[in-house]
Amino acid sequence: MGDPAGIGPEVILSTLARPPAGVRLCVVGDLTLLRSIARRLYLKIPWERTDWVDLRNAGSVRAGRPGVQSGRAAHAYLEEAIRRLKRGEADALVTGPVSKETIARAGISWRGHTEYLAGAFRCRTTMMFVTGRFRVSLVTTHWSIRDLPRRISQKEVARVLEATRRALIRDFGIRRPRIGLSALNPHGGEGGMFGGEEKRILLPAARRVPGVAGPLPADSLMQAAARGEYDAVVALYHDQALIPVKLIGWEQAVNVTLGLPFVRTSPVHGTAFDIAGKGRADPSSMRAALQLAIQLARRRC
Amino acid sequence: MGDPAGIGPEVILSTLARPPAGVRLCVVGDLTLLRSIARRLYLKIPWERTDWVDLRNAGSVRAGRPGVQSGRAAHAYLEEAIRRLKRGEADALVTGPVSKETIARAGISWRGHTEYLAGAFRCRTTMMFVTGRFRVSLVTTHWSIRDLPRRISQKEVARVLEATRRALIRDFGIRRPRIGLSALNPHGGEGGMFGGEEKRILLPAARRVPGVAGPLPADSLMQAAARGEYDAVVALYHDQALIPVKLIGWEQAVNVTLGLPFVRTSPVHGTAFDIAGKGRADPSSMRAALQLAIQLARRRC
Repeated sequence: MGDPAGIGPEVILSTLARPPAGVRLCVVGDLTLLRSIARRLYLKIPWERTDWVDLRNAGSVRAGRPGVQSGRAAHAYLEEAIRRLKRGEADALVTGPVSKETIARAGISWRGHTEYLAGAFRCRTTMMFVTGRFRVSLVTTHWSIRDLPRRISQKEVARVLEATRRALIRDFGIRRPRIGLSALNPHGGEGGMFGGEEKRILLPAARRVPGVAGPLPADSLMQAAARGEYDAVVALYHDQALIPVKLIGWEQAVNVTLGLPFVRTSPVHGTAFDIAGKGRADPSSMRAALQLAIQLARRRC
Repeated sequence: MGDPAGIGPEVILSTLARPPAGVRLCVVGDLTLLRSIARRLYLKIPWERTDWVDLRNAGSVRAGRPGVQSGRAAHAYLEEAIRRLKRGEADALVTGPVSKETIARAGISWRGHTEYLAGAFRCRTTMMFVTGRFRVSLVTTHWSIRDLPRRISQKEVARVLEATRRALIRDFGIRRPRIGLSALNPHGGEGGMFGGEEKRILLPAARRVPGVAGPLPADSLMQAAARGEYDAVVALYHDQALIPVKLIGWEQAVNVTLGLPFVRTSPVHGTAFDIAGKGRADPSSMRAALQLAIQLARRRC
């Protein structure tokens, strides 16, 4: 359910007002809070079509008022979901948005869902964003531009290329995926004039994985991928991936974690405490996250 | 006219088949070559509506076959245009595409039109890209990511912000321009966690120029600017600017040089020797470059 004080509960309810058919859904959260939000926002929910795991822990939490209790509750929903996933009770996990600050205030060390799940399942994970047919995996996430060159190794680039390829084949059902590896420097380094990482690190990494083109200049590659010329792009840093994702379609974008023993997706927005409980939150990304999780999990079965 | 062996001549002819009204146009090039291309591509040109400055220097140059002669000819067209601009005979310059390699082979030192014109007119220039209402100026152009942090100074960022502001007011006719300054690091540095350039360099630079918001995370800023929330963006490096320009509309994009005593625009594509002379070149960018040059020059009058 994510943070009970954020927009997680209402985008889940908006999505489950018309639940997808042929799938068993289970929400781990606080049922009293969910019912009260549904009532206040006049959402008609076919309650019987979803399983509700009621942790009854959101007590006095109010929309838009995050705090220690809401952070602790959000963490408990995730922990309960992890327990169930470890017991093999689910094929996929969709997470609602949480707040780093709130969870930290509840005394829990937190960098993000991706990192937390990697720890819980002892896996090396890869962050991917999907909007429509545009898919982009990230080699690095939250590092300064200054630190970037020393964070990009041949081994790590090859690992992300391989993880992306495996996901495209197994989860997205693309038999012979075409992956574009982005260059780091302008014009792909222009033959070494503007940087040597392309030749020294990226080209050898690209050669280790089948179906990979590149390294290619980032600007042309993103344009080509947006036109459908690649099944996925591997980007080297945050903005190189997120600038195109936001321009191509942020509202329907989904965050996917590759490398876990189950499918995991999430909406790309945060808790948006400032508009929580007002019925103004756009459920498109949550809906897309659920649809994609179902689609990917079906292929794994 | 740009390189006579490239697509410059044919995109100029396509554009001048229906020349814009109320403006006096002058093409500096080789008239024999232009007439022969028009004939071969069945382009009906109202020749009398444009002034043709015939340098008769393209002799045996053939489309798709660049070399010393085509490079030397391209350079001569630009030099003749510069002489006329210095004599005040024109309000604006639109340049056709040239090839760095070909001009270099003709023995002329060449980094790009922007740098060449800056030298010829002893000005500090700024590169801007325009596509529709999306406008982006660049603080740095062709540097490796590794060199980037030491290339970005408070003084230079403030200079580009000021040049952008002046151009928006004087040339684009926007009375109170809203400019977004892009951050360097992901999430705008997240309060210093992923890099300190935002606080140390970018914020003080932004404060020196009126109407500037930022530094703002690049991904959200580009999305907001694409929706029209800013009249221009100032980007810190090549791909940060060119990824959005290519996604928002590369075909109609125009390269503008700020800081010269006249208006200068150019199409964003290169010489495209591989398709030259075949009638396959898309004239949209050249047409947009001419239209924008006229629009900007009219406001200066």
